[in-house]
Amino acid sequence: MKPLILVVNDDGITAPGIRELIDVMKEFGDIFVVAPDSPQSGMGHAITLNNTLRAEKVNFGNDDIPEYSCTGTPVDCVKLAVNNLMPRKPDLIVSGINHGSNSSINVIYSGTMSAAMEGALEGIPSIGFSLLDTRREADFSVSKEVVRVIVQNVLSNGMPDDICLNVNIPVVSKDELKGIKVCRQAKGNWEEEFDERIDPNKRSYYWLTGSFVNYDKGEDTDIWALENNYVSVVPVQFDLTAHHSMQNLNTWNYEF
Amino acid sequence: MKPLILVVNDDGITAPGIRELIDVMKEFGDIFVVAPDSPQSGMGHAITLNNTLRAEKVNFGNDDIPEYSCTGTPVDCVKLAVNNLMPRKPDLIVSGINHGSNSSINVIYSGTMSAAMEGALEGIPSIGFSLLDTRREADFSVSKEVVRVIVQNVLSNGMPDDICLNVNIPVVSKDELKGIKVCRQAKGNWEEEFDERIDPNKRSYYWLTGSFVNYDKGEDTDIWALENNYVSVVPVQFDLTAHHSMQNLNTWNYEF
Repeated sequence: MKPLILVVNDDGITAPGIRELIDVMKEFGDIFVVAPDSPQSGMGHAITLNNTLRAEKVNFGNDDIPEYSCTGTPVDCVKLAVNNLMPRKPDLIVSGINHGSNSSINVIYSGTMSAAMEGALEGIPSIGFSLLDTRREADFSVSKEVVRVIVQNVLSNGMPDDICLNVNIPVVSKDELKGIKVCRQAKGNWEEEFDERIDPNKRSYYWLTGSFVNYDKGEDTDIWALENNYVSVVPVQFDLTAHHSMQNLNTWNYEF
Repeated sequence: MKPLILVVNDDGITAPGIRELIDVMKEFGDIFVVAPDSPQSGMGHAITLNNTLRAEKVNFGNDDIPEYSCTGTPVDCVKLAVNNLMPRKPDLIVSGINHGSNSSINVIYSGTMSAAMEGALEGIPSIGFSLLDTRREADFSVSKEVVRVIVQNVLSNGMPDDICLNVNIPVVSKDELKGIKVCRQAKGNWEEEFDERIDPNKRSYYWLTGSFVNYDKGEDTDIWALENNYVSVVPVQFDLTAHHSMQNLNTWNYEF
């Protein structure tokens, strides 16, 4: 039996990145698409608790591929797909291809990666793919070759328990690409600046803006790999416990 | 100089839990409140990228405490507070007291904990508090004593680098409470059931519903602690790298 593959993203069901991902994933199995009806970048692991969810069947010209446009977040899409819409639990979930980086700390804000993490939580091998190009007209040709190599590995080797993969792809030609590197998440952060403006009714409002700063000099990080023309592969886990801090915290005084 | 303390939550600025938290935190320093104008449960680490943010000064009867009601997510509240609204970087961020559990996997869906994690990312000691009682009329008297003990420890000992604390409090009397335990995040998950309904226009929609299942038999987990009348304290990190999986992934074949 061919693998059943769920394709999801956070840029919305009409984004070029998900179209390219569907195109390459057709080589590996039967495809089922559930993706947000509008861009959901920065949604992190948000779920829809206080509102209703809708999923509408749509057709983008692939008559043999069921596609659903969903009003919810990327995590909602995975939950609804796996629990209600799909004929059986998928064998693989791929998320993306995101228009823009999800390296370093971006992983925790990323709807693309939260969809993959939700898959891992459900025990399904899951991969998020991101190309470091936010433009709608980005060239996904190298990315599609990367997707093939990673997916082939996951199907052959299986995914280690309780993780998903965060795959980021630099904007280089096939010739310039140096290879694929397993990395750790670089320590970095966004230094925010809010752009404060005044609306026509004289009330102030803000736009969130800022720039990413890498604090990490390591050569084993995703940022280093990407800056040096490698694809970065970071194994991502949902156990957030800082096990190394527990000993320290056990020296505190917890008497009332 | 007294510590400057940011108070945030995800249940919204009018929730009883944040009022109780403000009340106890006044003992420790100068308070500044920035919280969502409506409930934001399940927002995870969402940020507002495609829309504007507003923050309105409000007054709940504490004339000496600046309070802002914000249109954004809990993470937006922290970013806006730290970068724009506060006179200086806070010495401490406390989030909550959440109405409901953020133990086990709930940490990744939790707006309360994402606010605390955002604080940790900015290098600010940060703590999320949650009481296992979702009712508006929940009794926070034991929780306030727990807050005192934990905050006193953080102010005296400092917070270990790159973590925040996830503190969950069982619904018991002071006499029944056995103490405070440092724990790891239990492995568990939500088994979803979507409640499908038909709207007056004959279109279907879904409500997300489900029940939490604990897969973890360990006696060192937050779930175990809470079930045995202990407060659980889990150190939470934002490095999501599954370091233990890297060796395995390095055996894969990444040739194109």
